[in-house]
Amino acid sequence: MQIRTSTAEDWPGIFGFYQKIMDEGQTYAFPKGQSLEEARPWWMEPPPGQTVVAVDNGRIIGSAKMGPNKPGAGSHIATASFLLDREARSRGVGRSLGRYVIEWARQENYHGIQFNAVVETNEAAVHLWQSLGFAILDTVPGAFRHPTKGLVGLHFMFLPLESATSPEH
Amino acid sequence: MQIRTSTAEDWPGIFGFYQKIMDEGQTYAFPKGQSLEEARPWWMEPPPGQTVVAVDNGRIIGSAKMGPNKPGAGSHIATASFLLDREARSRGVGRSLGRYVIEWARQENYHGIQFNAVVETNEAAVHLWQSLGFAILDTVPGAFRHPTKGLVGLHFMFLPLESATSPEH
Repeated sequence: MQIRTSTAEDWPGIFGFYQKIMDEGQTYAFPKGQSLEEARPWWMEPPPGQTVVAVDNGRIIGSAKMGPNKPGAGSHIATASFLLDREARSRGVGRSLGRYVIEWARQENYHGIQFNAVVETNEAAVHLWQSLGFAILDTVPGAFRHPTKGLVGLHFMFLPLESATSPEH
Repeated sequence: MQIRTSTAEDWPGIFGFYQKIMDEGQTYAFPKGQSLEEARPWWMEPPPGQTVVAVDNGRIIGSAKMGPNKPGAGSHIATASFLLDREARSRGVGRSLGRYVIEWARQENYHGIQFNAVVETNEAAVHLWQSLGFAILDTVPGAFRHPTKGLVGLHFMFLPLESATSPEH
């Protein structure tokens, strides 16, 4: 399994599981029913961010997007999002993508990584991020309409990074 | 002083203080140096949200934008942002705009209002939102580069609203 920066040609391969995950509606507050072209800017991140793909035997089985959480005066904090094809779960692909993002954010001199909306019932994700050092900052109660569990909370999670080499980033 | 829904023609009047506030860089993690047209989609909110203006003697002295904080499964929580022309400050215009947004969110059956990035040194704003019932959920340390105070925190603030009339909003 290899993680590499995506190209525009990778998008249809990512979209296969993007579409399934958004239609299931258990983990992302994203629009449903998007076409291939409507969804593209929601996942394919422009510079200074990037989107990467996890490739196994030539097939895209996961993806992460990463970049500044905010523009301007908030651009030294990164954020990221993750998607895994169903058969890639429980195989360490999420962990590898998480580690990749942390290393990328360090190299780009971000001061920390913030997740803005981790669905509290997505325990696999919450535990994975905690095991990589993220803490739950707080939870907005009932902020997510889960298709089977009703209104559940959204966690903010945060990982501070070691002091950057460039204070002016 | 009157608060009303904005029209496209109001944007140049809002942009006058939008530009000053973003250039000062003390309260918003927005891009700097935007042109009138670049900045327009950053402030003029499409439906189901809206942008309103506070008008005094025919002059726009403040503005607020409001809408769903997230699409899809998170669209029942609102968010909002506020701008005041310098001479409108300490005159209750911010409080009137805040009350307007809360009333709008109630009528639209939102379950709560979330502010994602209140600069902790912007004490007038923090105190105003607290006086209107918002609580600081948590603070991301050092997430905002203040032009004179260095790295300061960003508060998440939240106001739960009474149970909505429509549970399916």
